[in-house]
Amino acid sequence: MEIAILLYDGVTALDGIGPYEVLHLAPDAQVKFIASKPGLVRTDFGMLNLNADFGLDEVPAPDIVLVPGAPNPEAAMNDPAVLDWLRQAHQTSTWTTSVCTGALVLGAAGLLQGVRATTHWMALEGLAEFGAQPTSDRVVRDGKIMTAAGVSSGIDMALSLVAEQWDEATAQMIQLIIEYDPEPPFQAGSPDKAPVEIRDRVIAQFAALMGGEA
Amino acid sequence: MEIAILLYDGVTALDGIGPYEVLHLAPDAQVKFIASKPGLVRTDFGMLNLNADFGLDEVPAPDIVLVPGAPNPEAAMNDPAVLDWLRQAHQTSTWTTSVCTGALVLGAAGLLQGVRATTHWMALEGLAEFGAQPTSDRVVRDGKIMTAAGVSSGIDMALSLVAEQWDEATAQMIQLIIEYDPEPPFQAGSPDKAPVEIRDRVIAQFAALMGGEA
Repeated sequence: MEIAILLYDGVTALDGIGPYEVLHLAPDAQVKFIASKPGLVRTDFGMLNLNADFGLDEVPAPDIVLVPGAPNPEAAMNDPAVLDWLRQAHQTSTWTTSVCTGALVLGAAGLLQGVRATTHWMALEGLAEFGAQPTSDRVVRDGKIMTAAGVSSGIDMALSLVAEQWDEATAQMIQLIIEYDPEPPFQAGSPDKAPVEIRDRVIAQFAALMGGEA
Repeated sequence: MEIAILLYDGVTALDGIGPYEVLHLAPDAQVKFIASKPGLVRTDFGMLNLNADFGLDEVPAPDIVLVPGAPNPEAAMNDPAVLDWLRQAHQTSTWTTSVCTGALVLGAAGLLQGVRATTHWMALEGLAEFGAQPTSDRVVRDGKIMTAAGVSSGIDMALSLVAEQWDEATAQMIQLIIEYDPEPPFQAGSPDKAPVEIRDRVIAQFAALMGGEA
């Protein structure tokens, strides 16, 4: 089972690495990190470089496509090579998936017309511009398209994906291997649960980045 | 605030990237990925390369030290340069931390004598060899040493660390930015919660790797 995780300038690392850590443990999974230009890829705040071992052309028809997000994923949304690759890969994929604002990249490729999908809570309404039906669940499946909410939600999505594509026992084994028994120290992980003051401060800090001029 | 995350051959990506994603969002945080030999570092199953931008000598006195784990962290435990660096950095650090079997590396450096600490559930008893008191909580703090359980637990630890070093509001903001409102699809994330059959299968699969001959 070939799994392609797209990297691009400014990508948010955990969006890709969370699902990677789950998916690569599935039997016969072969995860390949790909980019328009293979080699080192800078993540969103310039403190970490991930390596894309493969170019897009080297992985034309993966079984699973995964597009991570970014505070502003314009480097992917404005790259015709990425959008062409996505449209082509989606034709033969078993699953086409995104984490966080990676959904906006799927949208820019025209893959979300009429599709129920989610993304980071701050970008959710923006999905409608691409004809999608914004849905605020943490993991949303519509046919073979599976989208996850912000950043850390890719771990939950990947476990659901393993349960669907492999089986529940495999997903449970992987959950136990990565000891995914979360104990968040606060109730602040969603806009509904976080204190209003916290939410407002995050919006003030990130509004300019999320879908604005980065 | 300078934060050094150690990379080494065979490291588990999420052990480092989970905390990185939290910590780099804290005000004035400067995260540096370091290694004995800077450049590309292969992760545990050969499907992902992370880049260590800095050598050990370039980051001699970070405020926060973070050591991720690996199925078998022998590349770090057997590297005198890493152990020397850890001993030196620990003398001036504000926090010395580990995720998963990164605790065994702290132990090999002699930093866990008499210290309450945790690690991946499959490696927990091994901590006693280094004079530590194995403790099966998800995040364990003993003085300035903070250790986390397996792989994904580094996210919880990093949020706790931000609350301690910065403040709770900052930790909550970061939790909301990374939308950390986990919804694991199964109750299988700890050896106490997972079905016995699942646990036995994981042990059978990983026993040879975890602390054995990798």
